[in-house]
Amino acid sequence: MIFRLFPKDFSFFELFKEQVDCAVEAAAYFKEMVLKGSVDHHSLDKIHHIENRADDVAHKIIDQLNKCFIAPFDREDIHNLTIQIDDIVDIINAIASHMKIYKISKVDKGLVEFAAVIEESVQAVARAVNGLSNVKKPKAILEACVEVNRLENVGDAMRDELLAELFESETNPIEVIKWKEIYQDAETVLDICEDVAHVVDTILVKHT
Amino acid sequence: MIFRLFPKDFSFFELFKEQVDCAVEAAAYFKEMVLKGSVDHHSLDKIHHIENRADDVAHKIIDQLNKCFIAPFDREDIHNLTIQIDDIVDIINAIASHMKIYKISKVDKGLVEFAAVIEESVQAVARAVNGLSNVKKPKAILEACVEVNRLENVGDAMRDELLAELFESETNPIEVIKWKEIYQDAETVLDICEDVAHVVDTILVKHT
Amino acid sequence: MIFRLFPKDFSFFELFKEQVDCAVEAAAYFKEMVLKGSVDHHSLDKIHHIENRADDVAHKIIDQLNKCFIAPFDREDIHNLTIQIDDIVDIINAIASHMKIYKISKVDKGLVEFAAVIEESVQAVARAVNGLSNVKKPKAILEACVEVNRLENVGDAMRDELLAELFESETNPIEVIKWKEIYQDAETVLDICEDVAHVVDTILVKHT
Repeated sequence: MIFRLFPKDFSFFELFKEQVDCAVEAAAYFKEMVLKGSVDHHSLDKIHHIENRADDVAHKIIDQLNKCFIAPFDREDIHNLTIQIDDIVDIINAIASHMKIYKISKVDKGLVEFAAVIEESVQAVARAVNGLSNVKKPKAILEACVEVNRLENVGDAMRDELLAELFESETNPIEVIKWKEIYQDAETVLDICEDVAHVVDTILVKHT
Repeated sequence: MIFRLFPKDFSFFELFKEQVDCAVEAAAYFKEMVLKGSVDHHSLDKIHHIENRADDVAHKIIDQLNKCFIAPFDREDIHNLTIQIDDIVDIINAIASHMKIYKISKVDKGLVEFAAVIEESVQAVARAVNGLSNVKKPKAILEACVEVNRLENVGDAMRDELLAELFESETNPIEVIKWKEIYQDAETVLDICEDVAHVVDTILVKHT
Repeated sequence: MIFRLFPKDFSFFELFKEQVDCAVEAAAYFKEMVLKGSVDHHSLDKIHHIENRADDVAHKIIDQLNKCFIAPFDREDIHNLTIQIDDIVDIINAIASHMKIYKISKVDKGLVEFAAVIEESVQAVARAVNGLSNVKKPKAILEACVEVNRLENVGDAMRDELLAELFESETNPIEVIKWKEIYQDAETVLDICEDVAHVVDTILVKHT
């Protein structure tokens, strides 16, 4: 019998793939919602369902991390990666809930643009995280991380512009409360994507 | 002379007990405040006092963790546990401060229900954390963690419902600002309780 | 050839010095802005520029930490220190952005006082962090940490008072939204300074 030093490595990568798949799906579905301009029970159920699936995968990763003796990367990096990918799905889900609670019922041009940037960023996150199964080919991973950082800057400017416009033109304070939170949370999705890219970057530095 | 490998284990558990006792006391007193419907100087002093005591215990735990060579669990888990139990007391204290600052002067049915769920959750957190002194009997600990998770879901739904009602019926934007923050912070208490339950869970997985 | 065990220690301290220098500069410039009472494009560019420099230094520290075999302190403490000093600059930058977005155009007495306390606290943080290059002389470091903690309490009371005044006297809800966020963020700067002081404290406990 040969002692297998890395018996579960592959499943870590498979689980990460499952987790970022959930994030990509949530971002795609969020864009759909935003294009429709309102969130009904059915849509909310669907995004909650994606979030629950993502949660389950996150728990599996943490469990495996706690039980296995050897992990493909520093345990702390794996832990952070999982928590932050989970945070991406959580906040997309939270924005959808807010849209429902606030009875948003119009297509908002700014939010549509935001949702497109979020989808691009989450897809780049997925490329970066999936790339980790082969750290010896870091070029594509690094490019994906650079893209995530770029999109965070795009989102920063977008949020500042949308907020300026909101405070400039919206006279109903309750609308200001609603949209301020939605825009700020939308930008937070991109911040968390950037956090994931930083962890991926850290892993690369240690392994190349 | 026998070298004692775990000379300070017991004091870790005693300190954690002191810390969760503070959290339970804060939650109980918070419920009292909310039932009265307003927060005066005296009540605020009392909850600040509990928070200061909780702070002192947290510092003792971190100090002991930094100084001792061997800890009963992974140092990172002990650290997270302390920080998060401290966060529970901090945010309960913050909500009480806000109620005073916002001159809340009515019994709010929604907040009363929230305070009851918070108390239940903090009590379950206490059972989970106190159970750690005997990880070989994990059943009661696990049940407490499951209960904390359940109550977090209850709180999520409660907050969404209360916010929907608030945006539906409250026409004074300044009241919307106040109560939106109070309800969201109340739900955050339950989120942090869930974080504590996750750490307890992690410790169990590693030790059973 | 002598194997140098700590070949890069000095550069860690130099980089930390660069990083806290950025924070001190940001705090000083923030006070200037607040005294002028409004934020124009030029001022915002300047504070963004400081933030970018701080970011670069933070990345250098994280890179060096990932690459070097031996670090002067626990890697986790170095990591936290860098992230939190970066957070100080980020949030000062964010407040400046908000002032611009919200078209703040008056000198606010409360914010002026806050900016002075922030500057004092960041300077104390700088003394604490710079002191780490000589942990065997902990007295001045500890005094700086105590000062940071004291100023956090000052800020807490200041924020509560300013918010109470705001909710008492401001009848325009949109102004309430703006200033509530500004005051709360200003206090958060002091919270983060306190977090830095805690990490410094932790390092001292381990090394003295």
